[in-house]
Amino acid sequence: MGLPLLALVCCALMAWQHCAAEAAKARHFKWEISNMFWSPDCEEKVVIGINGQFPGPTIRARAGDTIHVQLKNALHTEGVVIHWHGIRQIGTPWADGTAAISQCAINPEETFTYRFVVDKPGTYFYHGHYGMQRAAGLYGSLIVDVAEGKEEPFKYDGELNLLLSDWYHESIHTQMVALSSKPFRWIGEPQSLLINGRGQFNCSLAAAHTQGANQCAAAVNTQCAPVVFPVQPNKTYRLRVASTTSLASLNLAIGNHKLTVVEADGNYVDPFVVDDIDLYSGDSYSVLLTTDQDTSSNYWVSVGVRGRLPKTAPALAVLNYGPNRASKLPALAPPATPAWDDYDHSKAFTYRIRARAGTPPPPATADRRIELLNTQNKMDGHIKWSINNVSMVLPATPYLGSLKMGLKSTLAAARPAETFSRGYDVTLPPPNPNTTVGDNVYVLAHNTTVDVVLQNANALSRNVSEVHPWHLHGHDFWVLGYGDGAYRGDAADEARLNLRDPPLRNTAVIFPYGWTLLRFVADNPGVWAFHCHIEPHLHMGMGVIFAEAVDLVGKVPNEAVSCGATATALMAGAHM
Amino acid sequence: MGLPLLALVCCALMAWQHCAAEAAKARHFKWEISNMFWSPDCEEKVVIGINGQFPGPTIRARAGDTIHVQLKNALHTEGVVIHWHGIRQIGTPWADGTAAISQCAINPEETFTYRFVVDKPGTYFYHGHYGMQRAAGLYGSLIVDVAEGKEEPFKYDGELNLLLSDWYHESIHTQMVALSSKPFRWIGEPQSLLINGRGQFNCSLAAAHTQGANQCAAAVNTQCAPVVFPVQPNKTYRLRVASTTSLASLNLAIGNHKLTVVEADGNYVDPFVVDDIDLYSGDSYSVLLTTDQDTSSNYWVSVGVRGRLPKTAPALAVLNYGPNRASKLPALAPPATPAWDDYDHSKAFTYRIRARAGTPPPPATADRRIELLNTQNKMDGHIKWSINNVSMVLPATPYLGSLKMGLKSTLAAARPAETFSRGYDVTLPPPNPNTTVGDNVYVLAHNTTVDVVLQNANALSRNVSEVHPWHLHGHDFWVLGYGDGAYRGDAADEARLNLRDPPLRNTAVIFPYGWTLLRFVADNPGVWAFHCHIEPHLHMGMGVIFAEAVDLVGKVPNEAVSCGATATALMAGAHM
Repeated sequence: MGLPLLALVCCALMAWQHCAAEAAKARHFKWEISNMFWSPDCEEKVVIGINGQFPGPTIRARAGDTIHVQLKNALHTEGVVIHWHGIRQIGTPWADGTAAISQCAINPEETFTYRFVVDKPGTYFYHGHYGMQRAAGLYGSLIVDVAEGKEEPFKYDGELNLLLSDWYHESIHTQMVALSSKPFRWIGEPQSLLINGRGQFNCSLAAAHTQGANQCAAAVNTQCAPVVFPVQPNKTYRLRVASTTSLASLNLAIGNHKLTVVEADGNYVDPFVVDDIDLYSGDSYSVLLTTDQDTSSNYWVSVGVRGRLPKTAPALAVLNYGPNRASKLPALAPPATPAWDDYDHSKAFTYRIRARAGTPPPPATADRRIELLNTQNKMDGHIKWSINNVSMVLPATPYLGSLKMGLKSTLAAARPAETFSRGYDVTLPPPNPNTTVGDNVYVLAHNTTVDVVLQNANALSRNVSEVHPWHLHGHDFWVLGYGDGAYRGDAADEARLNLRDPPLRNTAVIFPYGWTLLRFVADNPGVWAFHCHIEPHLHMGMGVIFAEAVDLVGKVPNEAVSCGATATALMAGAHM
Repeated sequence: MGLPLLALVCCALMAWQHCAAEAAKARHFKWEISNMFWSPDCEEKVVIGINGQFPGPTIRARAGDTIHVQLKNALHTEGVVIHWHGIRQIGTPWADGTAAISQCAINPEETFTYRFVVDKPGTYFYHGHYGMQRAAGLYGSLIVDVAEGKEEPFKYDGELNLLLSDWYHESIHTQMVALSSKPFRWIGEPQSLLINGRGQFNCSLAAAHTQGANQCAAAVNTQCAPVVFPVQPNKTYRLRVASTTSLASLNLAIGNHKLTVVEADGNYVDPFVVDDIDLYSGDSYSVLLTTDQDTSSNYWVSVGVRGRLPKTAPALAVLNYGPNRASKLPALAPPATPAWDDYDHSKAFTYRIRARAGTPPPPATADRRIELLNTQNKMDGHIKWSINNVSMVLPATPYLGSLKMGLKSTLAAARPAETFSRGYDVTLPPPNPNTTVGDNVYVLAHNTTVDVVLQNANALSRNVSEVHPWHLHGHDFWVLGYGDGAYRGDAADEARLNLRDPPLRNTAVIFPYGWTLLRFVADNPGVWAFHCHIEPHLHMGMGVIFAEAVDLVGKVPNEAVSCGATATALMAGAHM
C-alpha cells in the first residue's frame, strides 16, 4: 500500500517538529469473525460477532490515519468481507470490502488485511457486505476525529455514540431463502430495534406509558440491558448517530430536548435545530444536544419506525442526567415517533440538510446523466427489484480484479440503459412486470462529472411506493435536489436543484413516487457499488455497479483476487 | 483426466464388437446446490437441495463408467463440496470432495466438475463434506451396477432403495455454534429419522400400535408422505440400504421378513440371514428379501435408533404387497427395534460379516501399525474428541495441493503419535482431560500395508463409551477383528483376528470400550480423511489424515487449489 512509507517520506522532507504533530498514525486491529449465541433483544439467537463482541469493536482514529484490520474468518463454511461505510478508499479500491465487487470473499480460516486511510473526520460505521451478513449483526462504529491540531467547527463537552439497527429472529440464511423463493416470501418487519446492539423484545421499558405493553423485567442479561447515556447538566453533547438497519427507516427523538444537526455522512452541514431526526439505512449524523432541562429527571431516547407501517416497537434508552440514578425511569412518556407515512415531516427534514459553508461546491455542469428507474418486478415467479428493468446479479469473480485484468466475458456485451422511457407512469404498477437480470455495470471515464437521477415508482401492488436509501461506494455525492412524481428535466425540475450549497453525502433517500438528483466526480479509480441500502432490496437486485477508470487502478493485491477467473488466470501465468 | 480418452484408445486396440459391449460410459450430470424450504418430517425448515430436490438425485451407473458432475454452488455465502462415499478415487484424489483436504471449497456462484471412475459395483452414496452440511440434507444415492455383460453373484427380481438419515430442526449453523461454544452445548438427539428423505415428526403412521402416539394425518405434503415400497408376491428383492445419519446408529427390520445380507460398503459378503440389520452412519448394505408372506397384508419397514438412548421415534415405511392398496396400513405392529444397549445383538451382526469367496485376501502381515485411541477431552472450556490426545483441526489451505507443492509450514513439525500409553485404562474417564489441537497427519509410504487399531475408551463422564463408525477415504480396508477392552496385541488379541475371510469395507464401528483392527494397502496416492462418520464428532475433531505418497499424485487441477496458500504460490509463479 505504501501509505505508512509515504508518511515517513513526508516526514523526512519536513521539519521533524512540525511533522510529529501532523503525522498520521497506523492503527492496527486484529479481528476474528465468528458466529456466536447472543441475545440482542433478550431472545437468544446466533449473531455474527467480532472478537466475541456484538456489535463489533468501535474503531476510533484521526483523519489521515491508516487503519489496518487483520481479519480472520472463523465462520465454519461462510465467506466474509467488511465494508467501511463512508470511507472513500481513495487509491485502495480493493479494501472497500464488497464481495464479488472489490474482492474475493475471505474464506473460512483465511485472514485478509484491510489497509486504508480515513482521510476525513466524521461518523462512519462498518458492516458485512456479503449475502445479508449485515443483518446477522456484522457491524460496528468507525469514528474519525479531526487530525491532531485541527478543530471541529462546533463545540461540545462530550460525546455519545448511537449505532442503530433492526433485528430479525429468523436467521439470515432462512431470510435469503425466503426472498429467493418461488413463490416469493417476504421476510416481514424486524422483531426489534436495537441501540448499540441492545433492545427488548415483547416488552417495553416504558410500559407505564404504552398501552398494552408489558414492563420489561429488571435486566437479567447484560446483552440486552437498557442502554444508558450518562450526561451532566448544562453541557453540550455530540451524539453520533448511524443507522445500519436491514429494513427499517428510523426516527430518533429525545424527550424534551432539541437536536442541532451538524454533520451528515462524514460531512459538515449548515446547523439546524429539530425535535427529531430521520435516519434511513446507511445514514449517519452528528447532532448536538444541550442538557438544559429539569435536572431531577432522566429522559427517554426513543427510536421508532418511519416509512413502513410500524409493526416493531420503538427502541428506548435512557438519557441519564447526573446525579440521578441510571435506573430511574423518566417520568414523562417517551417522545412519539412521527406518523410512519407523514412524508411531509420526512421531506422537511431531508430537504433542510445543506452543506456547511466551506464545503466544496459541485461542478456547475455534468458530463453525463444516468437516469435510474427503480421498479419492482417478477422474473420466473420470483420477485425482484430492478433498475431500468434489469435486476442486478453479482458475478462469481469480483469485478475489480477481472476488469483490471481485462478478462473476456466479464461483462455482458450490452451496456445497461442510461435512461428509461419518458412516458413511464410512476404512479402505476409496471405495465410490463417482467424483468431480466444483468450485471448493471456502468463504465465511467476518469474525472468525468456524473449526474444520477434516482427515480422512484409504484411497486407491483397498486398504491405502494417505498422509500429507498441509495448508498454510493468510493465517493461522496452532492444531493442537488428532490422532487415528486416523474423527473422530466424541464425548467420546473431544474428549479428544484440546489447548486449553491447542496450537501455532500454518501447515502440519499428517494421518497415514494419521487426523484432525487445526485452529482459526483468520477475521480477515484475502482469498481464501486451503488445500491439501495435496504438489505433485502439489495438481495433482490436493487443496485448498479460503477466501473470507474479501472485502467488507472494500482496493482490489486493477490489476496483480493485469489478466487474464480482471476485466480485461474493468474495461476496460468497472467499478471495483474 | 484422460479417462474417456483411455477408454477410446482401449477400444481402438480391441475388436470393436467386443469393445462396444465392454465400453464404459461417461455419465454427465449438471447439478445446482441451493438452500430451499422443505418439510422432511412435515415441519418446514431449510435444507440444502440439489436441483430443487431433497435428497439429491440418485446417480446410477455401471462399474467402469466415468461420472462427471458439473456442480454449481448456488448457496448465498457458503462454500460446498461433495464427497462420493465409498468411491476410492483411484488416480483422482482431487475429486474426493473433502474441503480443506482434497480441494478448495467451491465458492458461491462457482462451478467445479467432479470427474471420477466408479470402478466397483455396489451401493454407495454421496454427501456434503464441509462443516456439517451433510446434516443439512446434502446427500443422495450412488448405485453402481456390474459392468455390461457381468453378473451379480446373487439373483433378484427387483430393487428397492433405502437411503436412511436423521434430521434436526435446528439449522446446522446453530448446531455448529453450539458444538463450538464455551460452555459446550450438546445438540441433543435428532427430531426425526428419515427414509429417502421423508419422516413424520410428532406422529406415527402406526399409532394404533404405539402407546401414546398420535396417528399422522393423511398425507397433505408430498415432501413427508409415507414412503411406500411396492412389491409383488413371491419375488426376491435387493434392498440397497445406506445410512448417512448425522448422529444416529440405526436398525432396520421388515415385519415378518428375513433379510439375507449380501453386500457391505460395495463389497460382496458371505450371505447370511438375519431378522434385522444395524447400520452405523457411513454404512451401506444390500440385503435380499423374498416376498413369501401372507399376500393379503402390507408390512412395516421400521428403522429405529441403536447405541444411544432412543429419543427419536422410529421411521416407518410400507412394504406394499400388490395388489393391496398402498394406503392399507399393515395389520401387525411394526417390528420392535432391539434394545439400544443390546450390544451383544449388535456384535453378533457385525462380527458375522465376512467376505464372500473370491474377495481379495489381506496381505499376511503389515509394514506399520498405527494405534488410535479415541478420547473425549476438554480444551479451554470447549469439549473435543481427540485421537491420542490431539483433536484434529483442518487447515485454511487444503492438504492435497499444499503437500503436493511442498509448501513450507503446511504440517506441524512433530508427527502425531503412532500409539498410546499401554497402561491407559479405557474403562475410566481420561486421567488428563486436557487436549491440544493438531493436524493429525500421518504420512504413508507408497504400497505399504498399514494396520490401524481403533481403540475406544470412556468419555468424560463415568460409565459412558459411545459407538464410533470410522470411515476411510480412498480405500477399502479389511476388518481383521474386534475385541472388548484395551487392545494389547498379545496372543489373545491375535487370536481374535480373521485373516482368512475378513470383509472389505470403508466404514467400521468401534463398540463401547472396545477395539477394532483394520488393514489396508497404501496404494492410492492422495490425501485421505479417516474419521468418525458422526457429524458432530468430526466437527469436534475426531479424525486423522493420511497423506499417502503425495509425490506420486498427478497434476492437481487448478480448480481444486484456487484458494489459500496454493493459490498465492501459483499466482506468484510456482507450478503444481
